[in-house]
Amino acid sequence: MNLLLVADIGGTNARFGLVEFDPAQLKAGGKINYTAQRQITLKCANYSDMATMIKACCAELGIAIPAHGCLAIAGPIENGQASMTNLNWKFSINSLRDTLGMETLHVINDFASLAYAVPFLQDAELITLYAAKSNPDAPIVVMGPGTGFGMAGLIPSGDNWRIVPTEGGHASFAPTNSKEMRIKSYLLKEQNHVSIENILSGGGLVNLYRALAYNAGIEAETYTPADVSTKGLNNEDPLCREAVCTFCDVLGEVAGDKALSWGAKGGVVIGGGITPKLASILHDTHFFERYKNKGPMATYVSDISIRLIVNDKAALVGSAAWLIHNTPALKN
Amino acid sequence: MNLLLVADIGGTNARFGLVEFDPAQLKAGGKINYTAQRQITLKCANYSDMATMIKACCAELGIAIPAHGCLAIAGPIENGQASMTNLNWKFSINSLRDTLGMETLHVINDFASLAYAVPFLQDAELITLYAAKSNPDAPIVVMGPGTGFGMAGLIPSGDNWRIVPTEGGHASFAPTNSKEMRIKSYLLKEQNHVSIENILSGGGLVNLYRALAYNAGIEAETYTPADVSTKGLNNEDPLCREAVCTFCDVLGEVAGDKALSWGAKGGVVIGGGITPKLASILHDTHFFERYKNKGPMATYVSDISIRLIVNDKAALVGSAAWLIHNTPALKN
Repeated sequence: MNLLLVADIGGTNARFGLVEFDPAQLKAGGKINYTAQRQITLKCANYSDMATMIKACCAELGIAIPAHGCLAIAGPIENGQASMTNLNWKFSINSLRDTLGMETLHVINDFASLAYAVPFLQDAELITLYAAKSNPDAPIVVMGPGTGFGMAGLIPSGDNWRIVPTEGGHASFAPTNSKEMRIKSYLLKEQNHVSIENILSGGGLVNLYRALAYNAGIEAETYTPADVSTKGLNNEDPLCREAVCTFCDVLGEVAGDKALSWGAKGGVVIGGGITPKLASILHDTHFFERYKNKGPMATYVSDISIRLIVNDKAALVGSAAWLIHNTPALKN
Repeated sequence: MNLLLVADIGGTNARFGLVEFDPAQLKAGGKINYTAQRQITLKCANYSDMATMIKACCAELGIAIPAHGCLAIAGPIENGQASMTNLNWKFSINSLRDTLGMETLHVINDFASLAYAVPFLQDAELITLYAAKSNPDAPIVVMGPGTGFGMAGLIPSGDNWRIVPTEGGHASFAPTNSKEMRIKSYLLKEQNHVSIENILSGGGLVNLYRALAYNAGIEAETYTPADVSTKGLNNEDPLCREAVCTFCDVLGEVAGDKALSWGAKGGVVIGGGITPKLASILHDTHFFERYKNKGPMATYVSDISIRLIVNDKAALVGSAAWLIHNTPALKN
C-alpha cells in the first residue's frame, strides 16, 4: 500500500490530501478510489515557499513526507520550472523533489488536473446539462469560468488520456448581437484586447455589469463578482440580473465555439467555480440556444453533450489520477 | 517496391498520383519521397461514383488498381462512411475497397490530410511568415481559408502524429474594432450565425466587400471572390482593397486565437488556397499586430511561429505520408 500526497494549490489556499493506493488494484483492473482522505487546507501566504508549506502540511498530518506526490498549481509549468505568479513563488520541480526527499513529484497546471479528472469522476460528480451521444475515441474539451477562464483538451490515447493545456480563455470575445457588441465596444475603450476571460470569469461578471450600466446610462455601483452574481440570481438588481443572464448566453456561445475548435465529439465539460452556481438559471437564458446556433454546424454541435463538474475538489481527484497513471514506480 | 495510389478529391476536381515506396527505406530510416509521380486530374462530374472514377484513373495511367491507396476527400467521414456533399456521393470505405479489390484503402478528410503533410513537407514547401522558437512536443494548429476555412490539430505522439480534425472555422467571428463590428452587424441581418468562415474564405471576401460597400453607402457590384482579391491586390477598387486588408487583419486575429485555443506551442501553419496569394501584402496590413494583440498572452503568442504552406499539392503529400505511416502491411 502506498500513501500518495496530492494537492490543489491556488493563489490563496492550498488543499492537500492523502490517497491510499495499492498497485495490485490497478493490475487487477479493480475500481480505484481517487478521492483523497484526510484533506487539509493551508493559507499559502503563511509560508515562504512551496517546500516549507509541504513540510508543514505533512507535520500537521503527522506523517513523513510521502515518496510519491502530485501538485496541481495555479500557474504555468515550462521546462521543469513552475511559477505561481500571485505568490511570487518559482521553483524547479526536480529540486523541490530532492529537497523533500521524494521519489516522484509531478507538478501540473490546476486546470489540466481538473481536465484529467473527468474520466475518473463518479457519476454524482458530473451532471449532464445537455445529453447527446458521445464518441469515446474523440477529444473532450474541458473549460470553465472561475478566477480566470481555464481550458484544456483531453485526448484518448490508448488506455490513458493526453491533456493538452491551452490558453483558449484569452482568445478574442465574439459578440453575437447588438447588446454584446456594445459591451465589447465599451470594454475596448479600456483595453486593446477583450478576451473571453474578460467576460467569462469573476472579473468578467463585473465587466458585464459595468458595461450594461454604462450603456443604460446608469452609474455603476462598486460591486464585487459575488455581489453581481448574488444580486443577479436573487433578482435584486435588474442590471446584475442582465449581467448574469448575458454571462450564461456567452457561456453557451463559447462552449459551442470551443467544441467546434476542438472537434470535441467526445463532449464538452464545464468546470470552475462559477457555473455550478448558475446551473439553476441556465434554462431561463439563451445558453442552450446559443450553444447550438452554429449555422451549418448546428447538427454537429447538437450531437455533443455538455456536462458540468459539481465536485469542487475535482482537481484533487485529477491530481491523484495523474500520479497513479503516470508514475512507472506505481505500476509494479 | 510498392506502387501507392494517392488522391486529393475536391467537389470539382480530383487529383490522383502514384508514389513508389520501398518499406526497406522506412526501416533504414532513409529519406522518403512523399511527392506523387505521374499526377493526373479528373473532373468529378464526369463520373457517377468514386469507384468508377478510380477505375478510370488507373485505366488512364495504364496500371492495375494498386493494392494500397489513400484518398483525401472534401467531406466528412464518420463510422467508416464518407460523403461528398457537393457531388451527392456517399460510400462505405470498406465496400469501396472490396469493389476495387484493394488490400488497404484509407479515406481521410482533405484538410486533415493537409495537416498531416506538415511534418513531411520540404523546406521550400513551407515558408516562415513569423519566426519564433517552437516546442517539438507541443501541438501544431493548421488552418486556412479556401472554399471554406479548414482547421485541424496535429499532436506529436511517439514517432507519429495524431490529427484532430475540427470544425473551428464555424466558430463565431470575433470583431475587434468598430469597422469589424459593423461588418458583423450587417451580416447578422442575413443569418443568425456569422462564423469565421463567413469572413475567411472565398465567399467571405465577397461578404467583406458587400458589407463594406453597404456601410460606405455604395452599391456593391456582383463580384466573385477572384474579382475582389484581384482588384484588391492590384489596388483597382478601394472597397476591394479594404476587403482584402480586412481579411488579412482578421486572419491574424484568428491565427492568434486558434494558437491560444490549442496551446499550439509547436506552431501555427496556414494552408488553403487564398493566403499564398495575399502573402505579399500581409506586412501592409495589421496581420502581425493582430496576431500578437492578446493582452496578457501577447508574449505567449509571440513565441509561436507562423508558417505558410506554398505547395498547392500538399494534401497529396499528406495522403501519401498518412498511407505509409498508418498501414501495417507497408511496414514489413
